Amino acid sequence: MTKLNPSKLAMVPFVSVDNMMRLIHFVGLETMLTEIADYIEEDFKRWELFDKTPRVASHSSEGVIELMPTSDGEVYGFKYVNGHPKNTKEGLQTVTAFGLLANVGNGYPVLLSEMTILTALRTAATSAMVAKHLAPKGAKTLAMIGNGAQSEFQALAMKAIVGVEKLRLFDIDSAATAKAMKNLEGQGLELVACKTPEEAIEGAQIITTCTADKQYATILTDNMVGAGVHINAIGGDCPGKTELHADILKRSDVFVEYPPQTRVEGEIQQMPEDFAVTEMWQVINGTAKGRTSDRQITLFDGVGFAVEDFSALRYVRDRLKNTMFYQDLDMLADPDDPRDLFGMVQRAG
Amino acid sequence: MTKLNPSKLAMVPFVSVDNMMRLIHFVGLETMLTEIADYIEEDFKRWELFDKTPRVASHSSEGVIELMPTSDGEVYGFKYVNGHPKNTKEGLQTVTAFGLLANVGNGYPVLLSEMTILTALRTAATSAMVAKHLAPKGAKTLAMIGNGAQSEFQALAMKAIVGVEKLRLFDIDSAATAKAMKNLEGQGLELVACKTPEEAIEGAQIITTCTADKQYATILTDNMVGAGVHINAIGGDCPGKTELHADILKRSDVFVEYPPQTRVEGEIQQMPEDFAVTEMWQVINGTAKGRTSDRQITLFDGVGFAVEDFSALRYVRDRLKNTMFYQDLDMLADPDDPRDLFGMVQRAG
Repeated sequence: MTKLNPSKLAMVPFVSVDNMMRLIHFVGLETMLTEIADYIEEDFKRWELFDKTPRVASHSSEGVIELMPTSDGEVYGFKYVNGHPKNTKEGLQTVTAFGLLANVGNGYPVLLSEMTILTALRTAATSAMVAKHLAPKGAKTLAMIGNGAQSEFQALAMKAIVGVEKLRLFDIDSAATAKAMKNLEGQGLELVACKTPEEAIEGAQIITTCTADKQYATILTDNMVGAGVHINAIGGDCPGKTELHADILKRSDVFVEYPPQTRVEGEIQQMPEDFAVTEMWQVINGTAKGRTSDRQITLFDGVGFAVEDFSALRYVRDRLKNTMFYQDLDMLADPDDPRDLFGMVQRAG
Repeated sequence: MTKLNPSKLAMVPFVSVDNMMRLIHFVGLETMLTEIADYIEEDFKRWELFDKTPRVASHSSEGVIELMPTSDGEVYGFKYVNGHPKNTKEGLQTVTAFGLLANVGNGYPVLLSEMTILTALRTAATSAMVAKHLAPKGAKTLAMIGNGAQSEFQALAMKAIVGVEKLRLFDIDSAATAKAMKNLEGQGLELVACKTPEEAIEGAQIITTCTADKQYATILTDNMVGAGVHINAIGGDCPGKTELHADILKRSDVFVEYPPQTRVEGEIQQMPEDFAVTEMWQVINGTAKGRTSDRQITLFDGVGFAVEDFSALRYVRDRLKNTMFYQDLDMLADPDDPRDLFGMVQRAG
């Protein structure tokens, strides 16, 4: 039987940026953040199943390009992502990304998707899912330090998943704060623009640091942080890029995704190799303790791990069913006779 | 100034399978193999510049999925490739692949391409480029053991680049040989179908082994191989998959792409860690010796390295200029204000 050319097997569903935005509006952003958080939580529960490896990074003086692969034994996924802090000045995104899922059984890709937007969603969903487990009970106020491309997604995920009602914003560039204030207008959050980081964290039970400079920075110093807060530190995510003074780490209980990666890329790169951390999947599984007292400082040293991208891609694949938010790409050569690649090329002439 | 949405920056040129076949027919297959070989040779000459790492493999009982990244400091490239020997029985390709080039300076992808076909071309181009340096002067006869999807490309590259005139074919499945014979009819090669590997290598100055079983196999035994030949061993390319008896390796001068990868994946995985090999880029550079006598057995233990994919993608990018053999994919989110990803999503509603 001659297959249609290109055959169905040759086709990989592709979610463009435009289609990702359609999907978000179709599902609703807060619903989508909540559902992605559920997928991430599911995958953290079966953490031990995953083939885990620190991301494969190619560093240059200007930034980094990374590949983040993982597999649950049935599905393989990876993300391509760059991080170039100087891009913003040139009118470009600091982070762009795309990702792929494939069938482990035969190696054929089954989904290709933009992930610049999806990464912002999965990062926010992860932060909020973690805060749901670690933040003080009844946390209502979030301080958001760094009001760049991630900030609004972070705020709405904390609202939808943790129940945050008030947002206190600070950025060294007040234009960034103004942008975030405008974007979040009418989204059901009480908004306060702040002039200093100290002002921003007043009364906040959750403090998110999300800044982008590739340098050792001190966004928070020890004397700024009181007892009983949850710190969501997600901006320090590559070697040489941190946001917190080391003294804060010493006073906190630190929770991480995957220690071999976090020790290289996270806030704890400032600490000795044997600095005690708790793996977040164990908290979710109930095999390790999360928050144990009201006075405790919990700190999520989030760097972003491949499993979270895998969860987000798995969600998109499931959510795409019965929608039109994708296009088929003729990406795989699929000759009638698999050994006859040459014949297929020849006959196309 | 408001950008068009999606803006030009958001777009990544994509070469589908169909467009790759158009490009091949537009350029001509033998010309394209020769030109790709030139690009590979150029990149071997500047080998030391490349950021090299063994490929990142995810193994399962059924096969392997690999990411092969590299960078020359200005351009970053990677290939996704699977290897599933059992696929053929299910009507699927053993190997499918796609690849990407990106700008190191800002991390933005600049080309996405099918690479199932392109991998066959670059593998054949590499084999022939190496044979041009190592095969006995005036080699006219090629024995091709394994007549699967790669074989015709291998044969035509050896014709175009080395000057091979006669092809002696053998496969344990005679239908594969019949397929290759039919495909290569009228391509300017004298063709002989053989009933045994011994018959195939009679009078051949170049012997290519290109079989696909994921097991220790012995396609060639020591007593089959006479003096003065060049062996192009490309089928042994992952742990547990070899084609040659170890005694052949002991009698040969072995040439490799990237020793850390070849020692794990190539024929020399059968040999001790300190087994002497020559790096092919040094032969091409003139810093190491290639063939030094007529009686010598030279053996290229080819496993396929990321730099070759990089060269092939670089070639495609250059060759695409002023053609229509690509489509633009809306793959990168590119908001007016790079910090305003959320606003871009919101306005799409």
